[in-house]
Amino acid sequence: MPSLLQRKLMQVKPEDAYENTRTLTTTTDKGHYLSLRPLINPTAEQEKFPFESLFGGLNNTVSISNIDETTIKQDFSFGIHSNRVLGLPMQDAAVPTVWKTWESGDIQETGTVHPFGLDKEGVDFVELWQPLNAEAYQSKDDFRVGFTAENARSVTLKIDSKEFYGIVTIVGNIVQGLLQKKENPSISCIRCVVDSETLRFKKYEIKFGESLLQFPSEIPESLVVGSFIHGWEVIEA
Amino acid sequence: MPSLLQRKLMQVKPEDAYENTRTLTTTTDKGHYLSLRPLINPTAEQEKFPFESLFGGLNNTVSISNIDETTIKQDFSFGIHSNRVLGLPMQDAAVPTVWKTWESGDIQETGTVHPFGLDKEGVDFVELWQPLNAEAYQSKDDFRVGFTAENARSVTLKIDSKEFYGIVTIVGNIVQGLLQKKENPSISCIRCVVDSETLRFKKYEIKFGESLLQFPSEIPESLVVGSFIHGWEVIEA
Repeated sequence: MPSLLQRKLMQVKPEDAYENTRTLTTTTDKGHYLSLRPLINPTAEQEKFPFESLFGGLNNTVSISNIDETTIKQDFSFGIHSNRVLGLPMQDAAVPTVWKTWESGDIQETGTVHPFGLDKEGVDFVELWQPLNAEAYQSKDDFRVGFTAENARSVTLKIDSKEFYGIVTIVGNIVQGLLQKKENPSISCIRCVVDSETLRFKKYEIKFGESLLQFPSEIPESLVVGSFIHGWEVIEA
Repeated sequence: MPSLLQRKLMQVKPEDAYENTRTLTTTTDKGHYLSLRPLINPTAEQEKFPFESLFGGLNNTVSISNIDETTIKQDFSFGIHSNRVLGLPMQDAAVPTVWKTWESGDIQETGTVHPFGLDKEGVDFVELWQPLNAEAYQSKDDFRVGFTAENARSVTLKIDSKEFYGIVTIVGNIVQGLLQKKENPSISCIRCVVDSETLRFKKYEIKFGESLLQFPSEIPESLVVGSFIHGWEVIEA
């Protein structure tokens, strides 16, 4: 089921909760996912990399199981993660998380990460996610809370060349893309919407990194799985 | 400044957070406020009173002071409170709360209540509030996240008769009303929207209590402060 989730709260226990990002996570119908987490007010020092983090992966990098009617377990191993690209501490093993849907429809995620190794003390975290309607998303100031229709547009592009590894998801009206340069590693990303008439990408909210020209700039003309556009393979359409 | 806040999270420490209500708090330009907190899935037993609570008051029942640029203190003494009407435990003294606006625009409220007396142990709570645009509110499934314009409609009606005490707020498009019968105490409430053409109330989300006929059913024809409609005095217009 395609989804667009907006983060409303982050808490690293036992500290207080906060939200200093405009984090959106898109998940396609087939379960490929991207989470882009731009800081709202980056400091001068943070401007070099104005994100809490950037990550995502294909559906083979997340293992999902049911706990009960309102709770699922998701273990993320990540296909791309900014911590890995930037050489920051990061857990090698999959990160187990628990997602509980509240009566309100919002979803509370809890988990524990061990960035310094599984034998070291872990960090407990809580996040709260509000579902948005991906088909109605126009901008950070113009969107609708609610679920995304099951039959909403759900497209995934992948690039895995000598030079690059990357994923683009198009869910409803919103495009997110994340691209890693393999040598002299760097990370680039985009977030924008699709023009309903021309199918061109527009109103970029995020444009970051040295490899922006590698991203497509419109919905692929041929939406046949297995076809290529601009070096990217359509793996879901 | 008129506002419409949707609650996203409730936590009674040290228990886990949750959200099992569709709580909206309206505050008028002059600071009169109503918070209606209907349960999303009341049990059979809760159907008699399917709310977490219902409360509100005129601006003389809340004392506001600044803590810092992003934080204010609000001490609530409440003009009407369902706990008082229903004979449930309730703190007599004003309840001090701290409201911190996050970078995301959401607002975290923290406080401590002493329902069994100030000399007994208090209960720490956390709530998270998401601002909605009161002028765009149509229904629980059709609203917009964001701020309410400073010049949005902001009307307050008050009734204080031998039989009743009540408050109605109309902020932007959304009406909330709370009414207490003084003898054989009972509480009634409404939540609905204003038809933009006829100015009649419509699409009632909440209609509860034995005194519903006392509520007005449209924007007063005469919006002059001091005039009366259906027994209610216009105290803000």
